[in-house]
Amino acid sequence: MSLSIDINCDLGESYGRYRIGNDAIVFPLITSANIACGFHGGDPLHIQDTIKAAIKHQVQIGAHPGYPDLMGFGRRAMQIPAEELKAIIRYQIAAVKGLTESLGGQLHFVKPHGALYNKMARDHSEAETVIEAILSMDKELAIMGLAGSHLREIVERKGGRFIAEAFADRRYEADGKLRSRNKQYSVLENPEVVAQQVLSIARDQQVEAYDGSTLSLQADSICIHGDNPKVESLLASITSILAKAGISKKPF
Amino acid sequence: MSLSIDINCDLGESYGRYRIGNDAIVFPLITSANIACGFHGGDPLHIQDTIKAAIKHQVQIGAHPGYPDLMGFGRRAMQIPAEELKAIIRYQIAAVKGLTESLGGQLHFVKPHGALYNKMARDHSEAETVIEAILSMDKELAIMGLAGSHLREIVERKGGRFIAEAFADRRYEADGKLRSRNKQYSVLENPEVVAQQVLSIARDQQVEAYDGSTLSLQADSICIHGDNPKVESLLASITSILAKAGISKKPF
Amino acid sequence: MSLSIDINCDLGESYGRYRIGNDAIVFPLITSANIACGFHGGDPLHIQDTIKAAIKHQVQIGAHPGYPDLMGFGRRAMQIPAEELKAIIRYQIAAVKGLTESLGGQLHFVKPHGALYNKMARDHSEAETVIEAILSMDKELAIMGLAGSHLREIVERKGGRFIAEAFADRRYEADGKLRSRNKQYSVLENPEVVAQQVLSIARDQQVEAYDGSTLSLQADSICIHGDNPKVESLLASITSILAKAGISKKPF
Amino acid sequence: MSLSIDINCDLGESYGRYRIGNDAIVFPLITSANIACGFHGGDPLHIQDTIKAAIKHQVQIGAHPGYPDLMGFGRRAMQIPAEELKAIIRYQIAAVKGLTESLGGQLHFVKPHGALYNKMARDHSEAETVIEAILSMDKELAIMGLAGSHLREIVERKGGRFIAEAFADRRYEADGKLRSRNKQYSVLENPEVVAQQVLSIARDQQVEAYDGSTLSLQADSICIHGDNPKVESLLASITSILAKAGISKKPF
Repeated sequence: MSLSIDINCDLGESYGRYRIGNDAIVFPLITSANIACGFHGGDPLHIQDTIKAAIKHQVQIGAHPGYPDLMGFGRRAMQIPAEELKAIIRYQIAAVKGLTESLGGQLHFVKPHGALYNKMARDHSEAETVIEAILSMDKELAIMGLAGSHLREIVERKGGRFIAEAFADRRYEADGKLRSRNKQYSVLENPEVVAQQVLSIARDQQVEAYDGSTLSLQADSICIHGDNPKVESLLASITSILAKAGISKKPF
Repeated sequence: MSLSIDINCDLGESYGRYRIGNDAIVFPLITSANIACGFHGGDPLHIQDTIKAAIKHQVQIGAHPGYPDLMGFGRRAMQIPAEELKAIIRYQIAAVKGLTESLGGQLHFVKPHGALYNKMARDHSEAETVIEAILSMDKELAIMGLAGSHLREIVERKGGRFIAEAFADRRYEADGKLRSRNKQYSVLENPEVVAQQVLSIARDQQVEAYDGSTLSLQADSICIHGDNPKVESLLASITSILAKAGISKKPF
Repeated sequence: MSLSIDINCDLGESYGRYRIGNDAIVFPLITSANIACGFHGGDPLHIQDTIKAAIKHQVQIGAHPGYPDLMGFGRRAMQIPAEELKAIIRYQIAAVKGLTESLGGQLHFVKPHGALYNKMARDHSEAETVIEAILSMDKELAIMGLAGSHLREIVERKGGRFIAEAFADRRYEADGKLRSRNKQYSVLENPEVVAQQVLSIARDQQVEAYDGSTLSLQADSICIHGDNPKVESLLASITSILAKAGISKKPF
Repeated sequence: MSLSIDINCDLGESYGRYRIGNDAIVFPLITSANIACGFHGGDPLHIQDTIKAAIKHQVQIGAHPGYPDLMGFGRRAMQIPAEELKAIIRYQIAAVKGLTESLGGQLHFVKPHGALYNKMARDHSEAETVIEAILSMDKELAIMGLAGSHLREIVERKGGRFIAEAFADRRYEADGKLRSRNKQYSVLENPEVVAQQVLSIARDQQVEAYDGSTLSLQADSICIHGDNPKVESLLASITSILAKAGISKKPF
């Protein structure tokens, strides 16, 4: 029996003349693409070009909807009534799904973005709202969210498929939460340390927490950040360490 | 043999707390709805509610994409490179198509909005770009545009179906163009005059031009403006005059 | 000695073709105008036309900044870091202040809008941030906020002038808070009841709460809602009842 | 008598998480900053930080207003009615002027951006509209525009001061127009060639055109592009060549 792991990345977030990410570098080395939908980032042309690139590189396509807040890049919590939030999510999925299908591809999953992702991981009601919105577009869409959170239970209860996500370059606290970006040492910068964390998650389903303790972590996919200036060497290190361990990169 | 005519109206253009149109009044009396796609007007919740209303009233659904200019309501000409404009149109159609299908409906046609509509009617290159964008989403989508323009030829050459549109409450010039909104008497205000123009178009394929001459006008659909404060009485007059003439309202 | 009260109204919130409020009806009957700044509502032309109307009607001018959320009309709570929020507030004040002065007017005060107004009334830190932003633009700008809240203490400690605001058509709870809009009977609809509440606040510094108890309420200004469809008769009733009681409408 | 030349650069165009330009590198080496106003680019916090940096580096401050089109970065021609365009320009100037003054600085000039700049250079009516809008905010604001265009005459006729701008890294045609960006060799890439063009403009009021002919060019300021990846070496070359020629960099 052989081990494999999915590597996902947020892509297509450029907007007009504004560029974010290193999509061309990242595509050959990942297996799933979370493609911006135009509300927190992404304009129609960049979104479409990103879908084309994903199809060309045979990378699995996901929609990456966020709050309607370009100025805040979807990273500011917003209180939106449930019915309106559902429509906002559904609209974004429809746009990316329709573009993908018209280009001969298929939308496989949805990963909520930024503050929406974070709120879902801690707010049961918001999670229910977003999950219902996603499944109402297509029952077959897998839903990606924080590994170890309450999300798996909610998604599965509603008849959906949950994809647990871990982070290659984020430090975990002993209780399984991500170390806050407001604190020191929340982000791993050394490519070898990052690769080691990826290997540990993929092979052993565990990770070393900030306090040195060992944390159990079941993940179906590992996120790398495409806007990391070192993303090329990070991906090279990850690819190399996984290859040596006999673990293949494969879409979930 | 019985005559029939399609009556279309722009709908779903409200945005957040901002309301435009009298959608509830209009829906029972029309046969095709041009639904805003979120760029010149329309937010996801209003768009979705409008699609639901169209399905409920068995009104044929069209997407109504426009330039990305909420402040100008899509009524200001914008010069957008062809590839980008295609992506902008495709994104909007995808959003409304996906929402419509997820609600059990079907997208039948596309009618470009405002300055985009006007530019297509006079600019061959822009027309080609937009028509290609629409048909690339779905070959079966009918394309609605100005009756008597060069659009029919372009659409049909590309293998699409063209729906020629006339206006119930706009005055025509002798050369078949719409009398400019910047001039006096460009809009018909008297419900009986409007109804008479509709009847004349539907029954006789002709209309009386501003200079009193008779103009031949082949139209598959007649547009009424939902934001006209008298829209209720206009639609009542139209419905009544068509009924007396034995002409039914029917989707194209 | 003669009594007087300021009557304020949110104005200039129209956006492009979208209209909100009945500015033309309201201006002759109020004494202070809270003018939208372009982030929750208001485009440059409507803002400028509203400033001109205020100057013409000798109505005192205030800036009405909000969260950057046109789709939500500034009514959705947003978490924005303090330094960024300050810049967002300062930018909006600068725009309305500069336009006002170039037209020969003067900016007298600032009233935060919607969810920002509400958050300030209950969140000490957000209140400090916003108040510092306002006073950093001009120490002389009065700051309008919820009567009976902690805001007076903060504003005055920072050397500013606080204007306590009460609402003509909102029901108060016995503890002095506004009855939530999510509950029944939160809004007074009968013009005579509204006028009675205005008189009670202006003359007696008290108001009858939802549970029938009498609430003490010190207010320097009373807000009327310009988008109320009955605003004309509301303002007529208020004007009449104040005149009979010998209370003049006067800017604070 | 000593020669001097002003070096200007577009700055403050970053938006939220999106970054454009190398403001930190550029500031020590220029004498005038054209600061984005929030419509084609620039959010309040970046705008404010850019004003602070300009004040710190004693760089002369200008407002850089554009069309309201973030997705197109103000580079797409838009047809906006004159009164509305005036309000759009005035609002932007007011915002940057007010922020600048509240930080202890002074707004010296206005340079329109992108498609607005280009349209002014060729469309007399649009030029009149924009120039009137600028001078209506403050008669003392200098107006920067394309050297050799009809703009000087219009600005001076209206009682304003015109600053003629040349470009360090753009190729000129023999008729004095900028070589279109759609053509090859429109942009100079070699730092030494760029520096040579700057020297030629500053010292000799002439430039070598694309066809090899010598073009007379009176310029008060020379624009460098801050988003050029080589901007640091470009500015170093320019600084060095000017120093050797005894020409100082000085605000106009």
